[in-house]
Amino acid sequence: MTLLDPLFGWKPIDEIFSDASRLLRMLDFEAALARAEARVSLIPADAALSISSHCRAELFDLNALARAAADAGNLAIPMVRQLTDLVAKADKDAARYVHWGATSQDAIDTGLTLQLRDALHVVASELDHLCAALAQLAEKHRATPLAGAAGTLASLHDRGLDVAKVLAEELKLPLPDVPWHAHRDRIAEVATTLALLTGTLGKVARDLSLQMQTEVGELSEPAAAGRGGSSTMPQKRNPVACATILAAADRVPALASTILRSMTQEHERGLGNWHAEWETLPELVRLAAGALHRAAETLAGLEVDTVRMRQNLEITHGLIYAEAVSMALSPHLGKRPAHQILEKASQRAIAEKKHLCDILAADPTITSRISAAELDQLFDPANYTGMSSQFIDRVLATHKKSESKP
Amino acid sequence: MTLLDPLFGWKPIDEIFSDASRLLRMLDFEAALARAEARVSLIPADAALSISSHCRAELFDLNALARAAADAGNLAIPMVRQLTDLVAKADKDAARYVHWGATSQDAIDTGLTLQLRDALHVVASELDHLCAALAQLAEKHRATPLAGAAGTLASLHDRGLDVAKVLAEELKLPLPDVPWHAHRDRIAEVATTLALLTGTLGKVARDLSLQMQTEVGELSEPAAAGRGGSSTMPQKRNPVACATILAAADRVPALASTILRSMTQEHERGLGNWHAEWETLPELVRLAAGALHRAAETLAGLEVDTVRMRQNLEITHGLIYAEAVSMALSPHLGKRPAHQILEKASQRAIAEKKHLCDILAADPTITSRISAAELDQLFDPANYTGMSSQFIDRVLATHKKSESKP
Amino acid sequence: MTLLDPLFGWKPIDEIFSDASRLLRMLDFEAALARAEARVSLIPADAALSISSHCRAELFDLNALARAAADAGNLAIPMVRQLTDLVAKADKDAARYVHWGATSQDAIDTGLTLQLRDALHVVASELDHLCAALAQLAEKHRATPLAGAAGTLASLHDRGLDVAKVLAEELKLPLPDVPWHAHRDRIAEVATTLALLTGTLGKVARDLSLQMQTEVGELSEPAAAGRGGSSTMPQKRNPVACATILAAADRVPALASTILRSMTQEHERGLGNWHAEWETLPELVRLAAGALHRAAETLAGLEVDTVRMRQNLEITHGLIYAEAVSMALSPHLGKRPAHQILEKASQRAIAEKKHLCDILAADPTITSRISAAELDQLFDPANYTGMSSQFIDRVLATHKKSESKP
Amino acid sequence: MTLLDPLFGWKPIDEIFSDASRLLRMLDFEAALARAEARVSLIPADAALSISSHCRAELFDLNALARAAADAGNLAIPMVRQLTDLVAKADKDAARYVHWGATSQDAIDTGLTLQLRDALHVVASELDHLCAALAQLAEKHRATPLAGAAGTLASLHDRGLDVAKVLAEELKLPLPDVPWHAHRDRIAEVATTLALLTGTLGKVARDLSLQMQTEVGELSEPAAAGRGGSSTMPQKRNPVACATILAAADRVPALASTILRSMTQEHERGLGNWHAEWETLPELVRLAAGALHRAAETLAGLEVDTVRMRQNLEITHGLIYAEAVSMALSPHLGKRPAHQILEKASQRAIAEKKHLCDILAADPTITSRISAAELDQLFDPANYTGMSSQFIDRVLATHKKSESKP
Repeated sequence: MTLLDPLFGWKPIDEIFSDASRLLRMLDFEAALARAEARVSLIPADAALSISSHCRAELFDLNALARAAADAGNLAIPMVRQLTDLVAKADKDAARYVHWGATSQDAIDTGLTLQLRDALHVVASELDHLCAALAQLAEKHRATPLAGAAGTLASLHDRGLDVAKVLAEELKLPLPDVPWHAHRDRIAEVATTLALLTGTLGKVARDLSLQMQTEVGELSEPAAAGRGGSSTMPQKRNPVACATILAAADRVPALASTILRSMTQEHERGLGNWHAEWETLPELVRLAAGALHRAAETLAGLEVDTVRMRQNLEITHGLIYAEAVSMALSPHLGKRPAHQILEKASQRAIAEKKHLCDILAADPTITSRISAAELDQLFDPANYTGMSSQFIDRVLATHKKSESKP
Repeated sequence: MTLLDPLFGWKPIDEIFSDASRLLRMLDFEAALARAEARVSLIPADAALSISSHCRAELFDLNALARAAADAGNLAIPMVRQLTDLVAKADKDAARYVHWGATSQDAIDTGLTLQLRDALHVVASELDHLCAALAQLAEKHRATPLAGAAGTLASLHDRGLDVAKVLAEELKLPLPDVPWHAHRDRIAEVATTLALLTGTLGKVARDLSLQMQTEVGELSEPAAAGRGGSSTMPQKRNPVACATILAAADRVPALASTILRSMTQEHERGLGNWHAEWETLPELVRLAAGALHRAAETLAGLEVDTVRMRQNLEITHGLIYAEAVSMALSPHLGKRPAHQILEKASQRAIAEKKHLCDILAADPTITSRISAAELDQLFDPANYTGMSSQFIDRVLATHKKSESKP
Repeated sequence: MTLLDPLFGWKPIDEIFSDASRLLRMLDFEAALARAEARVSLIPADAALSISSHCRAELFDLNALARAAADAGNLAIPMVRQLTDLVAKADKDAARYVHWGATSQDAIDTGLTLQLRDALHVVASELDHLCAALAQLAEKHRATPLAGAAGTLASLHDRGLDVAKVLAEELKLPLPDVPWHAHRDRIAEVATTLALLTGTLGKVARDLSLQMQTEVGELSEPAAAGRGGSSTMPQKRNPVACATILAAADRVPALASTILRSMTQEHERGLGNWHAEWETLPELVRLAAGALHRAAETLAGLEVDTVRMRQNLEITHGLIYAEAVSMALSPHLGKRPAHQILEKASQRAIAEKKHLCDILAADPTITSRISAAELDQLFDPANYTGMSSQFIDRVLATHKKSESKP
Repeated sequence: MTLLDPLFGWKPIDEIFSDASRLLRMLDFEAALARAEARVSLIPADAALSISSHCRAELFDLNALARAAADAGNLAIPMVRQLTDLVAKADKDAARYVHWGATSQDAIDTGLTLQLRDALHVVASELDHLCAALAQLAEKHRATPLAGAAGTLASLHDRGLDVAKVLAEELKLPLPDVPWHAHRDRIAEVATTLALLTGTLGKVARDLSLQMQTEVGELSEPAAAGRGGSSTMPQKRNPVACATILAAADRVPALASTILRSMTQEHERGLGNWHAEWETLPELVRLAAGALHRAAETLAGLEVDTVRMRQNLEITHGLIYAEAVSMALSPHLGKRPAHQILEKASQRAIAEKKHLCDILAADPTITSRISAAELDQLFDPANYTGMSSQFIDRVLATHKKSESKP
């Protein structure tokens, strides 16, 4: 508990996001991963049991983890290392299967997701309490008069609701249960929804622009006369559409924050904060829609250089297959030793400007465990696409389903 | 069109949010209001027809509107004035019924809502084009190999999806169609949803705190020993819970903008922007949940001083009923003359420190049109609650429905 | 230390802003206040010594403070209470003079200022290290060629700097030491400076608008035909200029954050983040300047209702003088008992709708210590303006000095 | 003028940032550039005169510019094209020297700088008016009593200022002219200053991280055991420090916006907005200082691979020298034809996977104008460092001057 936690936080939530819980939730992932991999017979059931039994936050040294994370760049790396050490003390074989086939981000993001799920449960239940309290107040003070032009339609006497209904009909707008003059959640939700869309478009534009770099050259925006040239550098072809989409993704979050921040409007009429919406919201919609339009145009005419992609796969001298080889070696040597061997081989490949495959083919530790044919296969990109085809099927199926809707 | 519109905006959206459209959509509201009021026989059908026929943007002087808005504080006031003048030239009687019973915000917000509806239609349709282009690319490049740890589960070979399924089962988490490592819309949506909630809580806290001011004194947070005292001013009782809820509503939008802005992560692993989430998201959830908890507590124990509310209604010497009297006079004198009479009477009430009712009761322009009994009724708050009771019924019904859900 | 502190924070800074330091720096304020008040003979030297000797963080219960702060609304209130208790145990008399004449905000803000001073020292010294490292790299790699249009003026061969100098002369712009194409600190500083100005204007507008409320009525914006009227409520006079200034103060911070966030531009040419400036910066300047202009206009013609101000002073039935009476009683009874007496008397004044002065005049605990004449004086606002006249002199002197500059 | 300009903007500022002024200020740059280049005898005086005389906004087609900018990616490219056409009609020779040696960003940023200079003049003068109005109000209402604990030190009677002076002495803090309880510009300026610093660090980290990419490999963070490894990919060395600096640069702007947005505090005590500072400001300082520390550490131990840098210069097959060749050809052929020749040669170099120098050496249009030796020189990076050495001297001189200060 920090000095200001009881003032700004809330105990059940603070506990969900405590350091100990952050660690525990990542360990929950490691334990579940081991159990899942045992259930599909990928790793021995004994190993999963042993791993699972060590996934307890109290066995870990939080301070050491914190310090190691500063070097490693994230918490998962030292956590996996500590866990592996703990498991190894009890069961050397099991230690090989810790974090099997997973990345740091798998552990970190799944841990976060588990924390968020718990937190959203607590939030939902407290929201019920709030609604109950509000309902009770509404019942009790139904007839209490209060100053303020609160949208009661009082100026229309007993015809207010009739007018409202017919007006909604005339304008083809839904009629809300209650007036919402200075309560702007409807407005703000439009802003956040478009901000989410713009963020997604920005992610796409970021990746496209990275693959359009001169040094990478895998993708190009659709060519057109006068498009993307440089006033001074004749050889350049700029990712113009990506730049404007990224500009939108840079600007929209701040505009959304203005709309969100302006929700605390006073009584029945916001002073300044209502006015803050008048130009901000149209600007936000303009940027989001402009980004969307340019993304649709760009992706419809995207030029994909598959030859260059294949070349780029080779440019790292096989280093990108290091993970695959490491995984293949792990059942023989354990995960960490395999990782270390590949780390050193990778460094040699860089230093000696050789292909990683050649380095490995000359190493008896490797060749005694992996055949030459097997090694070749590990360096074939076609054998390392994982589940991508299934993923494409799934997302296309979802897309087709949504298309067929009226 | 501005110089940068074709670069950042998009024509169909720019047109929806042009100055002319902004005006037109407010005029659409005025026309629909008149028609609706005629349909429920509140104003003459002829008047509605005449008003409706003048609700055309090209009849208005945009520059004059713009300049007048700077004094009026919003566009609706000079728009209503110009519309009334236009209608009056053609049909003096009809001019009385322009903007009948409506506020500036009704016109501005409904206009905005109509613009947003149009814009969201355009956005939805363009989103379909984008999805179609993406689906086509996915089909075409299903087998194109590309560098990058993109979550294909390749390290698990053909067991990737099996592990994923069982892991999701172990953790009781839904399994997404595709991996989303560096595509953070799921994460960002948690942030924006909680930001919307916090904004709503902030709105409630804003109103509560305004009604808790020493000068207003209508509400108090639940009393508790040591709660809300001042270290130096013995008479003060501070709205402690409201202050912390408002602090959350001040901070959460910026935190949400960080999450949104961090969505443009690079390839399969964001550099810095992923890391930016690690402390921001928990802080956002903590503040939102803390605000929610304090709001639930405060509203469950809210002290309501109905006597003070009634007194405060009287404190303005009847000025808050000026609108009601103006509405009652309008059928006799026309809307604008009625408004002007009440404006002057209000100024006299303030200057002479008299009750507005007394000022009006001494004015033959009033008494020749409104009886003394009628005038008394107009100054009775119980007769000026409008549709608030029906609104309460509707929102309670919705609440009960949601409660009964499992 | 939290799990992520070594990754994102820095030990010397983390220590400066630790919970213990937050408390200690507030205690440093309390100790210095006591010493200062002793040095000007306002409180006994012994008391100051005793207070000072208890201002040690390790004597305090952080958990108890944290919990009490949630009720009190800030940390200073329970800190003063714990300190008073600690001092009282050792020296009952000294305990009377704890936090003498100070507010919670005095302790909190001064504590923060001391923390910031320490932090800025550390930052300045580390900045020197960074600059030294950069200077060394610049020396060493002076001749290392690198791809990129980095503003070296290479296309002008050896005439680059000559052209730059004459161009700066032609445009009457200063010539920077180095090109800054994608390094936007100059641009961003314009944005933050105008954001600070807009924030200051927003603070002024906030206060003006609060004093313009119907219930307060102390100030009005300059009157003009058509200014600030309501389309439906004849009695209202809206703070139009304040609303637009506050709207600017709502919007400008988010725009400034976009400019700041866009500083991380890639190499010699930002992708998207440069483009994000093109509309954001002009909009920011427009809003800041618009707010400034309206503030200047409003304050030049501000209507001040001094009669209403005097009336408002009376509206709380003397409660605003409770602090003055409490201070006057403290030397006789001690600070906390005096505070408690006034707290109760204030509650009675509210409950019985009596003037606080009358309540106190009937209380022998008071009258045995403060004469009737003295009590009357305490309730005279003219005797409670503190140093405001001196403050006005000082700030006017500063203003005149700045005016006389060329 | 837009519909909302008179409400939110201000005419003199709106004019400075109008579309016509945006164009004019870029044209002012082009005119001044031509004049400057003529003054140093880089281009003919006649040409400068002719160019200068066409730099008038009214000669340009704004709509055509706007549309062309959407393809070009910025306004400067089509502006330079239109200007060249205009000049060519009057003086074909002069047209060669339009935009001589300049980039799009030169025109855009200098134009913006000229707009900002004008705007800041207007702002400064209006600020004087505001201060004069405030000074007059302070004089006039010096003695007007007003409710509120405004930091007048009233509770200390006539000793307030004495205590304040000695307290400042005790704490070694400067004594401000006036109290600033709820006026937070001092606090906010700390936030914006550190945000500017963090943005600068983020810019450095962005460039470092781009040069650390596997595909680029020019720089590495200082090596250390366990530093920057990947939990699954043995070959990766992650830019850990850069990631955390970039995370700070992602987060700090939003935190600064919270502080700026919270400046509109109510009267003498902000409700919620003061509280919003308590955790936000320490977090901002922590992130800024953490980023600074890691930047100092990283740059002090930065590994620079100059061999790789030289290799990367070659990787584009000479395309990065296209600008140099284009500049060398321009006096012979005019700027635009030279640019077009290089554009085509660059496309051929890419398509045919040849070195640009070889393409050019085989083109008689080139060889008839540029000798083989000259061409070789143009492709030597050592001949294309421009003024970088002078720039390094200047900035090091500034650095040394600042170091020698006490």
